[in-house]
Amino acid sequence: MPVLAIDLGGTKLATAVFNEDGRMLSEEQVLLDKRESAAVGALLVQQATKAITISQTKGITLSSIGISVPGICYQDSGRVWAPNIPGWENYPLRNEVEKAVTSMAVSIDSDRACYMLGEYWQGVAKDCTDAVFIAVGTGIGAGILANGNILRGANDIAGAAGWMALERPYDNSYTSCGCFETNASGDGIAKLARKILQQQTGYNSSLRDKLPADIRGQDVFEAYDAGDEIATMVIRQCIELWGMAIANFISLFNPQKIILGGGVFGPAIPFIPAIRAEASKWAQPVSMQQATIEASALGHRAGLYGAALLALRNTTKQKVS
Amino acid sequence: MPVLAIDLGGTKLATAVFNEDGRMLSEEQVLLDKRESAAVGALLVQQATKAITISQTKGITLSSIGISVPGICYQDSGRVWAPNIPGWENYPLRNEVEKAVTSMAVSIDSDRACYMLGEYWQGVAKDCTDAVFIAVGTGIGAGILANGNILRGANDIAGAAGWMALERPYDNSYTSCGCFETNASGDGIAKLARKILQQQTGYNSSLRDKLPADIRGQDVFEAYDAGDEIATMVIRQCIELWGMAIANFISLFNPQKIILGGGVFGPAIPFIPAIRAEASKWAQPVSMQQATIEASALGHRAGLYGAALLALRNTTKQKVS
Repeated sequence: MPVLAIDLGGTKLATAVFNEDGRMLSEEQVLLDKRESAAVGALLVQQATKAITISQTKGITLSSIGISVPGICYQDSGRVWAPNIPGWENYPLRNEVEKAVTSMAVSIDSDRACYMLGEYWQGVAKDCTDAVFIAVGTGIGAGILANGNILRGANDIAGAAGWMALERPYDNSYTSCGCFETNASGDGIAKLARKILQQQTGYNSSLRDKLPADIRGQDVFEAYDAGDEIATMVIRQCIELWGMAIANFISLFNPQKIILGGGVFGPAIPFIPAIRAEASKWAQPVSMQQATIEASALGHRAGLYGAALLALRNTTKQKVS
Repeated sequence: MPVLAIDLGGTKLATAVFNEDGRMLSEEQVLLDKRESAAVGALLVQQATKAITISQTKGITLSSIGISVPGICYQDSGRVWAPNIPGWENYPLRNEVEKAVTSMAVSIDSDRACYMLGEYWQGVAKDCTDAVFIAVGTGIGAGILANGNILRGANDIAGAAGWMALERPYDNSYTSCGCFETNASGDGIAKLARKILQQQTGYNSSLRDKLPADIRGQDVFEAYDAGDEIATMVIRQCIELWGMAIANFISLFNPQKIILGGGVFGPAIPFIPAIRAEASKWAQPVSMQQATIEASALGHRAGLYGAALLALRNTTKQKVS
């Protein structure tokens, strides 16, 4: 029986209907448009109800709902912490959706868990029992598949990879989002470029044509492609950090696959061979040989696919994750 | 029904009989005495057979055997890789023991997995679903409990924590056993002391009374206790690295507990508050609050207890790990 998948992001909301073998039957996307707090919940319920009603007119009955959220979902309470949605410090999302759609089971998980589940179901991790999806965008997080299940931890916040310690000594800039994220996320790339521009005044760089505050990660990738020396320094440092972090996942988890996704992979996909070379220096050598490093196959739809699998697993009463 | 637990180390072999509720009924230890290859397997079989026979004379029938090995056991084949036992690159241990003791189920796992299982069964991790045992001795490894099961990875080599990358750039000294182990294992402490003694010629140190090659980790702890400045530098760097590594486990696994064991914890137990303070700087802050950091309750018997739980789980046909 088909299911409803919902992918809530920081700025937009996607809904899609999937059948059991992974075909997407319909898809719709709306912007959050600066909605906050309960208005985001109301929009989600509205879009869910709309998708269910349209499906019914086509003679399609949906069995369950899966939702990917840009944060953490506490599985006991169904409450959500989503740092980029104002008022969602502890939002009772599952309750809200269950009240509105009483006939269907509702499952919710973090975006990083859903990315991993999506790739496991219909992407590059189909044959894996153990894999890690590292999402590098504005922030950094990891969805971890261990023996076929999502690793949750004691309180549902496992996979906080942005906090990985990769370089001592501690620097106060790490306080808000961790060492790895501060240095090698999309925002980190831009910040590092600003810092190196300031330090390396002897180097010309097209990045100096912008106000420092206007430099984005994307600008650094474009400058790199044009042979810019400052951009090259920034990207080299990121390759080193991405390689070290991937090495740590490989040594600790012995996965079959590391999957790179999020906005940065994206433009950083061509660096995967260089990242692999860096990781190979650091990781447990046997585990390193057993792991491939690949780009996400599902791209920006990975969360939707993962939400669909959440829904399917809850229909058939399998263990959700 | 009681079980037989066997803990094979790099220099000695312990056997013990446990009943189902965790009481040790008997224990024996022998030295490997420079045995290699098949002679180690023969000693293990001999000691197992002896323990079974003695139990029978007491009217105790044993139901199964669990074995902790100083390396990796590949679960499909029952073969063991143990770097400190010459000739055990791919030793068919399960087969050897099953041939000799046909009446009993035989389960084998790595020492690091057994340490974790021991603490889970009868030590400080009794109420945990998610915990990490970090064994810091000559080398460094981690036994990881995730949702009540040992994390194995795709090919049974998860938990290779000694390879954790914690400091860039890469240094060639990391090639043989990884960045974390090179810098912060028992051997690493001694190596670092030798290096700092060479660099900091301006400092007096009681460690200079020894030939550099004779300095052991234990000497550094003793010099630290006497206020030695070089030893203090070494221990401070180790606290930083232990804290970073623990932070990484906390951010990635969101465990209830980090358990520190092995020969170094031991003498480094008094530093746990300082290690916690260091980890708190780096780790995901909510996960950090949810985790305690504690010394092993079972000490050098953690592997034996874990081997006993392996055996018990295999008797009752539960999932082994």
